[in-house]
Amino acid sequence: MSTTTSPVDGSTGAGTAREIGIAVLGMGNVGAEVVRILRDNADDLRSRVGAPLALRGVAVRDLARPRDIDSALLTDDPAALVARDDVDIVVELMGGIDPARALIGTALLNGKSVVTANKALLAEYTGELATAAAGAKVDLYFEAAVAGAIPVIRPLMQSLAGDTVERVAGIVNGTTNYILSAMDETGADYADTLAEAGRLGYAEADPTADVEGYDAAAKAAILASIAFHTRVTAADVHREGISSITAADLVSAKKFDCTIKLLAICERVRSADGRQRVSARVYPTLIPHHHPLATVNGAFNAVVVEAENAGRLMFYGQGAGGSPTASAVLGDLVMAARNKVHGGRGPLESTYASLPVAPIDDVLTRYYVSMRVADRPGVLAQVAGEFSKRSVSIAAVRQEGAGDDARLILVTHRAPDRYQSECVAALEDMDAVIKVSSVLRLEGTDD
Amino acid sequence: MSTTTSPVDGSTGAGTAREIGIAVLGMGNVGAEVVRILRDNADDLRSRVGAPLALRGVAVRDLARPRDIDSALLTDDPAALVARDDVDIVVELMGGIDPARALIGTALLNGKSVVTANKALLAEYTGELATAAAGAKVDLYFEAAVAGAIPVIRPLMQSLAGDTVERVAGIVNGTTNYILSAMDETGADYADTLAEAGRLGYAEADPTADVEGYDAAAKAAILASIAFHTRVTAADVHREGISSITAADLVSAKKFDCTIKLLAICERVRSADGRQRVSARVYPTLIPHHHPLATVNGAFNAVVVEAENAGRLMFYGQGAGGSPTASAVLGDLVMAARNKVHGGRGPLESTYASLPVAPIDDVLTRYYVSMRVADRPGVLAQVAGEFSKRSVSIAAVRQEGAGDDARLILVTHRAPDRYQSECVAALEDMDAVIKVSSVLRLEGTDD
Repeated sequence: MSTTTSPVDGSTGAGTAREIGIAVLGMGNVGAEVVRILRDNADDLRSRVGAPLALRGVAVRDLARPRDIDSALLTDDPAALVARDDVDIVVELMGGIDPARALIGTALLNGKSVVTANKALLAEYTGELATAAAGAKVDLYFEAAVAGAIPVIRPLMQSLAGDTVERVAGIVNGTTNYILSAMDETGADYADTLAEAGRLGYAEADPTADVEGYDAAAKAAILASIAFHTRVTAADVHREGISSITAADLVSAKKFDCTIKLLAICERVRSADGRQRVSARVYPTLIPHHHPLATVNGAFNAVVVEAENAGRLMFYGQGAGGSPTASAVLGDLVMAARNKVHGGRGPLESTYASLPVAPIDDVLTRYYVSMRVADRPGVLAQVAGEFSKRSVSIAAVRQEGAGDDARLILVTHRAPDRYQSECVAALEDMDAVIKVSSVLRLEGTDD
Repeated sequence: MSTTTSPVDGSTGAGTAREIGIAVLGMGNVGAEVVRILRDNADDLRSRVGAPLALRGVAVRDLARPRDIDSALLTDDPAALVARDDVDIVVELMGGIDPARALIGTALLNGKSVVTANKALLAEYTGELATAAAGAKVDLYFEAAVAGAIPVIRPLMQSLAGDTVERVAGIVNGTTNYILSAMDETGADYADTLAEAGRLGYAEADPTADVEGYDAAAKAAILASIAFHTRVTAADVHREGISSITAADLVSAKKFDCTIKLLAICERVRSADGRQRVSARVYPTLIPHHHPLATVNGAFNAVVVEAENAGRLMFYGQGAGGSPTASAVLGDLVMAARNKVHGGRGPLESTYASLPVAPIDDVLTRYYVSMRVADRPGVLAQVAGEFSKRSVSIAAVRQEGAGDDARLILVTHRAPDRYQSECVAALEDMDAVIKVSSVLRLEGTDD
């Protein structure tokens, strides 16, 4: 650290290796933090890479907006920035499919490594991008796309490269976890809690991508692809959001010693005949209070990985925010830059296993069903009959209230989701059942 | 997966890249699992590496012992095995300094990559080994040396490569965690619990390395070296074991809403003048029940990492055992083999920061002190006086018992450890203090 290189202005210290040129696309929360860290930690980063990181430019949509950066580095022409000969690595933080897809594709084809946090893009086009990266022998890193600062992609791809992953289950969306934690704590209903989350900056003006599970589904697709060496896209992920969760559901979950979390679940589904498929799904889930994911509250994320030899691992930390996400981006950036200096490259997606995707119907799940029923003898027997008819066994039943407010809440054992949902459909047709008010799945138990 | 290569017998499938030759040194719990996985998962491993992994031989001490392996692969001459031209990667699982040190050194100098789980060796000789690896441009990987299956080394070295780690605190020894968890749960004393741990296979016949903290100290040295880009050896680690912890300490800890864990703590110590040093230390520690490490029980391990931008991360899983440790070894092996196929190499130790090690005296700690005192007025004032004299402020006091069993238990706020220990020494000289029965530190609070 004897020389005083500033990678932001592009000057080189004496006696160091050639600079590694960086282009940053997008200067929102994360981009601004990446630019700040490149500047503030320049000396450390150079020592770790073995060469100075030189920021060549930052592409933004609005050049007029004041930003904490030398304005000469700003451009509104990302394609021209990516095309520069002195750019070795492109950091894509714009989000969205277009123009990110074309910009990254061009960068890779031209031998530039890419670091991206773009989960929506990756959930659709990892195949296309990884092919381009493999052809050009460059890196495509995306640790920041799932669970913010928490190392999940690299551990799955590298640390577990010699193991067989059976299951990945995680809380990977901070907005929904904030809402569900707050509802559980305060007893408030969904709409009020969502509004409060918006006021506090935990929910966006249009919260659809978060609350309807699209964000988590994109992450599930990325995680499943890596974990099972199989290409899984967002369309392969069964998705249900949290907008129909009520305060009553959380109260009721508590009576079963559970809380409710929006989980992304990626599972290796093994048939009796030894055939393997993969399941990827996102839905609100009852999990027991003693489960490690039950205590992950607020905007935190956590991912549980179960592998044949490693057993159960858990990764926990901040899943969003400028600095945490920038930390993950910078880790990837340093590794990509090291590879530019020393040769070699990290692993790309590997899809050799090409396992088929199992539809949700075939997946073994447990159901939690809450319904308003007629307050008369024989209702439970009738309800139970619908389940036993389909070989779905009931684990626990609770009868609450009386008269107009008589309710029946039941939890089933594991059975194919198809039969579980058929049971619920049959209940909805029963005279004795006034209304099926809530249907949720239950995870994190061994039954 | 169309060809049927068996890397164990060394034959090559058609149309694949050249084999990557593997030598395994040591066939204990972990070595046997590594050999099994190399055989059982051969097809998957080949797909992930891009070439078959061919086991060239396994060095063992006792050739006569029956083992689940083709006996033609066994040898009692590890040096000859390592020297074979068709060995590309050496997996060292013998443990101990000699002959592992020379074998690994020779392997690296001859251009072979090395995967090792040998924490004792790494805690002393990482510098020498990393220099050899850098010279030969090969890999030296050691994920399995710390916290078994839990990815900690790779996340610290790679995922956090662009961040500034402030602190690493972990439960990294399963034996001591088993003992402390069992004492906390059953109320049994140390000697009985240690004996029970021995019977159950959680403690070795000579448990010294575990219970006196040597194992944890080696891991702390490895973690601190990586986290702070500074060479830290086992001798730099302040070390205290758990053999003096009593059942009464755990009861007493509970009254402060705490449990006791043996923690390995690596910290960036910042002086008021901006000077940075590192502290690495291992000692039994009171931590509050709400702290994420407090719920890590039995033989599980967990490591909490705090970084400037990432914030607080936690990694949790199985810290020991044949299969979990083998999972970590195999992850390293696949990555090292990939680099043999594709070129390039992973990062080695980086010691550019070369921060000085802060002695424990200078580190800010909190103390928990339990003492038998004379049952007369004024004792508390006298005791408190010794603390205030050294500017150590008292956070909480509890007086218990009466007469011959009168006890005073106090917890201090943060102050340099030197002053805390001076206070305790002064108490021991006080007439009113009959016996200082227990002195522990407290972590995991912000005070």
